[in-house]
Amino acid sequence: GKKEQYDEEKISSSFIKAGASPEITTAATKTINKKVKDNMSTDEIYHRALSHLRVLEPRVALKYSLKRAIMDMGPEGFVFEKYIAKILREYGFITEVGQILNGHCVNHEVDVVAKKESQVCMIECKYHNSRGTKSDIKTALYTHSRFLDIEKAYREKDINNNTRFEAWLVTNTKCTSDAIKYAGCVGLKILAWHYPKVENLEYFIETKKLYPISILSTITEKQRDILFDSDIILAKELGSYKMDSLAELISVRQSRASKILNEASIII
Amino acid sequence: GKKEQYDEEKISSSFIKAGASPEITTAATKTINKKVKDNMSTDEIYHRALSHLRVLEPRVALKYSLKRAIMDMGPEGFVFEKYIAKILREYGFITEVGQILNGHCVNHEVDVVAKKESQVCMIECKYHNSRGTKSDIKTALYTHSRFLDIEKAYREKDINNNTRFEAWLVTNTKCTSDAIKYAGCVGLKILAWHYPKVENLEYFIETKKLYPISILSTITEKQRDILFDSDIILAKELGSYKMDSLAELISVRQSRASKILNEASIII
Repeated sequence: GKKEQYDEEKISSSFIKAGASPEITTAATKTINKKVKDNMSTDEIYHRALSHLRVLEPRVALKYSLKRAIMDMGPEGFVFEKYIAKILREYGFITEVGQILNGHCVNHEVDVVAKKESQVCMIECKYHNSRGTKSDIKTALYTHSRFLDIEKAYREKDINNNTRFEAWLVTNTKCTSDAIKYAGCVGLKILAWHYPKVENLEYFIETKKLYPISILSTITEKQRDILFDSDIILAKELGSYKMDSLAELISVRQSRASKILNEASIII
Repeated sequence: GKKEQYDEEKISSSFIKAGASPEITTAATKTINKKVKDNMSTDEIYHRALSHLRVLEPRVALKYSLKRAIMDMGPEGFVFEKYIAKILREYGFITEVGQILNGHCVNHEVDVVAKKESQVCMIECKYHNSRGTKSDIKTALYTHSRFLDIEKAYREKDINNNTRFEAWLVTNTKCTSDAIKYAGCVGLKILAWHYPKVENLEYFIETKKLYPISILSTITEKQRDILFDSDIILAKELGSYKMDSLAELISVRQSRASKILNEASIII
């Protein structure tokens, strides 16, 4: 983990943001303070804070873990794309991942295509697995150009169609202020962490409890990757599993599978 | 250097491309063959080939070194931008580096702005310091979007102006076929290594002998960086230097400075 000065303010404000009460926040920060060592890594501080929250307020701990759980989706962005597609499906969209669409000039690979009635959304997913990396203006610029090229090809084919095309940029981190300004100006929709203020990425996840399995503390990285490979990304997708079939799928004892299903059932 | 299987074909075809005669190519490849060891790195092979060429055909060696000399311009792309600006100045353009231009939606940093009569070129410089990295469709897409945003702002201000705006993408490596196709379709000009077939990057450099100082074998990396920092990028810019002032600038003995000026005078 990246080394970073321990900052009591940061920890307590992150507790508050996750919804912890002031009392619990104060109590937790005090306990962490006592144990903290100089030069503790961000990861260590995070894990310490989280283990306190788990005991004190399990639901808040969950929210606190969500950002990290998404960053744990893997080195590549492919699982994140599938995750976004699954989230949108829960909101009534028909989705496809990694489609090649014809443009006027060239063909383009679009991460997620989401359709609902006459609305067609072409979604660029920008996944970052380190904190602090922002999606920048270049991403907004190329997403918009690509959208224009695809839309132009479509209009050429079918001029009287009333399909409403939209370009979206979905990211698990933040966007630079320039990217946000440009997107607003050209009509590119941004869905990011804490952006927009209300209907942002975590809103869509939390409203329908679409937590990724990487949020579960009872599974290892290896087990998580087996589940991802089996296209199980949402914790709620574990709901249809029986203890023995899950145990077999991820090669664990039934008692462990039972713990996993139990943790999943709490959050879905 | 990257390890790569020694490939006689590759070496001889690179000699031919650089303009070596078939006889010299055969002779040089034979000598290299004798000395070559398994798993020799690309860099070692390159340096061995080059030292042969230096003896046999100094002018061909120069051309052979050009691509590498540009890759040696530093980890960041800033010297490359200044190099491109200087090349264009030699072709009658007025150039500026790293300008912030107003767009309709946001302000944009443009690597090089080059003007000649009513022509205004906004140039994105894409510098890669490893071989095989290509500039891809995303670069072409964002360069085009940025251009449209700047052009729109300009047209809003001054509708009857007959300024001819152009967007250029200049890179020291190659572009993907998609990037080339898209650029051709939207009117984005590409200037790259070996692209277009005739008036490509090396053509503009070689026609006026605008070799970068990093092509000189008589200077060290440290001396090269001092020169870059003093805004001396073209070998011909050394032409105005006297032995003693160059010796002082880069902190070397006069005999060394003399060797450098001598090598520079051969190629300019």
